[in-house]
Amino acid sequence: MARYKSWTLTDVASDVWLDSFAVANDTLHLPTPHDWSVRKRTLRGGLRDGVDLIDVHNGALSFAVVPTRGMGLWRGEYRGDRLGWRSPVLGPVHPRFVPLADRGGLGWLDGFDELLCRCGLESNGPPGEDVWTDDAGLTHRQHLTLHGRIANLPAHLVEVRVGLEPPFELSVIGQVDEARLFGPNLRLTTTYTTVPGSPRLVIHDVVENRAAQPGEMQLLYHLNVGPPFLGAGSRVVAPLRQVVPRDGFAAAGMDTYDTFLGPTVGFAEQVYYYELVADSVGRSLVMLCTAAADRGLVVRFSKAELPCFTLWKNTGALEDGYVCGLEPAINYPNFRAVERKHGRVRRLPPGGRWEATWTVEVADSRERVAAVLAEIGQLQATAPATIHRTPRSDV
Amino acid sequence: MARYKSWTLTDVASDVWLDSFAVANDTLHLPTPHDWSVRKRTLRGGLRDGVDLIDVHNGALSFAVVPTRGMGLWRGEYRGDRLGWRSPVLGPVHPRFVPLADRGGLGWLDGFDELLCRCGLESNGPPGEDVWTDDAGLTHRQHLTLHGRIANLPAHLVEVRVGLEPPFELSVIGQVDEARLFGPNLRLTTTYTTVPGSPRLVIHDVVENRAAQPGEMQLLYHLNVGPPFLGAGSRVVAPLRQVVPRDGFAAAGMDTYDTFLGPTVGFAEQVYYYELVADSVGRSLVMLCTAAADRGLVVRFSKAELPCFTLWKNTGALEDGYVCGLEPAINYPNFRAVERKHGRVRRLPPGGRWEATWTVEVADSRERVAAVLAEIGQLQATAPATIHRTPRSDV
Amino acid sequence: MARYKSWTLTDVASDVWLDSFAVANDTLHLPTPHDWSVRKRTLRGGLRDGVDLIDVHNGALSFAVVPTRGMGLWRGEYRGDRLGWRSPVLGPVHPRFVPLADRGGLGWLDGFDELLCRCGLESNGPPGEDVWTDDAGLTHRQHLTLHGRIANLPAHLVEVRVGLEPPFELSVIGQVDEARLFGPNLRLTTTYTTVPGSPRLVIHDVVENRAAQPGEMQLLYHLNVGPPFLGAGSRVVAPLRQVVPRDGFAAAGMDTYDTFLGPTVGFAEQVYYYELVADSVGRSLVMLCTAAADRGLVVRFSKAELPCFTLWKNTGALEDGYVCGLEPAINYPNFRAVERKHGRVRRLPPGGRWEATWTVEVADSRERVAAVLAEIGQLQATAPATIHRTPRSDV
Repeated sequence: MARYKSWTLTDVASDVWLDSFAVANDTLHLPTPHDWSVRKRTLRGGLRDGVDLIDVHNGALSFAVVPTRGMGLWRGEYRGDRLGWRSPVLGPVHPRFVPLADRGGLGWLDGFDELLCRCGLESNGPPGEDVWTDDAGLTHRQHLTLHGRIANLPAHLVEVRVGLEPPFELSVIGQVDEARLFGPNLRLTTTYTTVPGSPRLVIHDVVENRAAQPGEMQLLYHLNVGPPFLGAGSRVVAPLRQVVPRDGFAAAGMDTYDTFLGPTVGFAEQVYYYELVADSVGRSLVMLCTAAADRGLVVRFSKAELPCFTLWKNTGALEDGYVCGLEPAINYPNFRAVERKHGRVRRLPPGGRWEATWTVEVADSRERVAAVLAEIGQLQATAPATIHRTPRSDV
Repeated sequence: MARYKSWTLTDVASDVWLDSFAVANDTLHLPTPHDWSVRKRTLRGGLRDGVDLIDVHNGALSFAVVPTRGMGLWRGEYRGDRLGWRSPVLGPVHPRFVPLADRGGLGWLDGFDELLCRCGLESNGPPGEDVWTDDAGLTHRQHLTLHGRIANLPAHLVEVRVGLEPPFELSVIGQVDEARLFGPNLRLTTTYTTVPGSPRLVIHDVVENRAAQPGEMQLLYHLNVGPPFLGAGSRVVAPLRQVVPRDGFAAAGMDTYDTFLGPTVGFAEQVYYYELVADSVGRSLVMLCTAAADRGLVVRFSKAELPCFTLWKNTGALEDGYVCGLEPAINYPNFRAVERKHGRVRRLPPGGRWEATWTVEVADSRERVAAVLAEIGQLQATAPATIHRTPRSDV
Repeated sequence: MARYKSWTLTDVASDVWLDSFAVANDTLHLPTPHDWSVRKRTLRGGLRDGVDLIDVHNGALSFAVVPTRGMGLWRGEYRGDRLGWRSPVLGPVHPRFVPLADRGGLGWLDGFDELLCRCGLESNGPPGEDVWTDDAGLTHRQHLTLHGRIANLPAHLVEVRVGLEPPFELSVIGQVDEARLFGPNLRLTTTYTTVPGSPRLVIHDVVENRAAQPGEMQLLYHLNVGPPFLGAGSRVVAPLRQVVPRDGFAAAGMDTYDTFLGPTVGFAEQVYYYELVADSVGRSLVMLCTAAADRGLVVRFSKAELPCFTLWKNTGALEDGYVCGLEPAINYPNFRAVERKHGRVRRLPPGGRWEATWTVEVADSRERVAAVLAEIGQLQATAPATIHRTPRSDV
């Protein structure tokens, strides 16, 4: 970012806290035709009581950042098209109403209604007791809860930045710690950036191990999309090295693993693990597009940073949460012990960092969708795709 | 209700929230002699920090509705007589201080100090692991916590209505969802109504299954009463088909199952399951009255809507929570698997509703108490009563 | 206290709540040269959102009382020397972010970053299932969580007092209940008192059993100190009857049990159980002093009130929480069943009270440290010290 103006909304270490905040082009008068704004408020009532929300609108694309929920994205909109889905939960849910360890470690679901939520940092995947032996030969036991804690921890630092030179970047920055005595000491610093008028949101995350000892981390981005991008005949398109069904139930759906039904009462989730083809600098992409190929949601990321991609098909009834998950990640959402065995749990040395930059963009015309399909086709032409029809023990 | 004026105090979907609210006859000037009022405020400090309270006073009867705690009633008063009891807990307790799954699923007790709290909606009864097989032959396992979640979930919608025509009804309406992905999607809509000067409170509840799949529900109204209605020699009077002691300990108290001791150090709870006699339109009633028969608390309900009635005798020392529970319900407070076996777990189809209207009223004179006793006597005369001296496997 | 002025900051029973509060010598104009003040505010953002803090400054010594966290002390300072430590947790943490039962009952650690936190009142020590038989021969089972609940319960009553006559005492008083139906009904009333210009803080605690039945209690004061009092070569000095290592790991460190390493990556905690020598009126003391003997933190207490003292050595890296715990207590921090067996769980009759007065003071010069060392030496001269090299079954 070149010259910019910034505002600290929250900084607990310095006792900084703004109850509300707004900046918009009608006050800043940047030479852009787009009617952008960034506004913060605190929600009241119901499960959302006390949740902070930062609404960013770039004039075309809008999204709501939730500092109270690990800097997740509650939902967004692009020129009238909703980004997100309708969960049975009426969120955003304050973490105090999310008892992670309840119901055998599935309490996380009580707060799950977001466009984007991070699963991690100490662990993600299903709940259970992880038993492992450390370098010193000591055996450890830990109860893990579904998808970890980061999505239910609040940011201690929140900042807004507006670029004063073209392209007039709008950024929201937040820091969330997942730390405790005798536990992890991981700090997430996330930056959401968009540009006035753009269909694109850039996510830049850094995770640091602030402990003096090595630490493990896992991270999966749970990006959840419903209509109008998801509908009967929608497709997920990606340059494939391989696709593997997670289990027998996903295997039974292999014939149609990359297309979607409309809302279907009683549909039970199917999950597919992808390995993608990347370009010469390691970048890859996945698109969810409509049957008419007139709209698409595109996720672009680096395979070096996010080697795993998971597709979550959960096309039950609208009332029951009709949704597709596009999930770039460090790891697949298996139990942590499985991921550790396969070398997919990241180990950070003391002071070590992990970093990723990825984007979510809307393809809002047949032309844009066709261009992305062509881009994927070119990548696919560089390598053969293997579609496994049954689960594999190595993923 | 005829013509009325209404105020939305909370509506999260529309970002409506009133920090405080008051309406009273000195501002509305209705042609009633009663000094009624409805006021909302948020409590601060201790376990109650952040709890919303709506005090309704009809000029004779007052009660406090708690939107933050599932629209329960904290306590009330009728012409100087307290409605409610003194729990060791200094409530009302914000749900964030009620860890339902702690202590083997008994954490609910940390928040229990109310005049009326609902037990449900997904389940009520003791904690444990419920294992069952669904229509498709799949086996499910779920950890249930004592008396379920609804009493510790906040309302997302709260409205106050005042009738502008006689009888000038005063109503508080609230909606609470018990919903999550892969879980129930039940919505409670409750309406408390009273009339200026009246000794009566009407509770109207609707529970809807908003899922696209059938869902189970349980609901028990835990109405808890202490002095001056409860005291040495107080009696519970009801038109009986049968009474069954819950267990051996209750059985040992059968000789005095319907009368109460004064506060008794070390008294251990005794629970009795009632089946009542109803009138030709299905209505029945139960009264707790004093030894002198000069005061009574009367509960009236429909046996079709609320087929089960449970009496909870917990007459320990005042310091330890001297209280009697009058509990009209869909089910008895056994473990959900037991209630399911006996067909007492309600199954709602997609979009299905359950509904009940019942009343709590104060009989504030010997004459009123005598009239209610006579009413119960007439009902009892229509059917024989069976007093079981030992527990039965079918309740 | 002689004549004083007092302010009620919180009193839930009377609906008293002050959002903020300040009193200082520039408004009260007491005839003291010290620039004292008492200020209350509510913290916002991050894990501390909603936490009340009362900063007391006596002109030399300052400390922050946390009503929201059981009246613990977050941290303090004496003429530029920090009192407290740097936990990986960025606190003070609101109890809603501390799920006590999570991770096998170790969730307490999520909120642990304080100078002083109480462990109790129903239990302290490690988590687990306690099974015991009561006087009536009934067997009870209870899941206990690490160090109990009191540090994560908010005060319902908070008062500030300022003495109007010499020595112009400054006090903060708070009440916290640990109570529920069918559970304990214990009330802690704590008073922190200091005097303008003094290096001393006096803690006076009363615990009452408000139940009509006998009740158990445990209490351990977890006083946690880091640099500059703790450093390489720092020592803990105390008049000893005996010291016992908690386990094999502590036993392996017996040669240096009373001295400290500097921050040491990977150091695993060592715990020592002390029995102290007291003077003719039962008072004893412990000092943590620097290698240079130029600074010390002194804890003084009554052995009759607090018969057990535990030393917690946890000198890992600074980033990992370099800290020493000085822990006067009713009991040692073993599992409650062990402490009960050894008669170290306090049993309070109905209405019974337990009371203790103890002090934390800073020795801020070689002379003061030498004087305290001499004081300890005189006590030690009255009785022999036994240094056990291995754990003992009776402690």
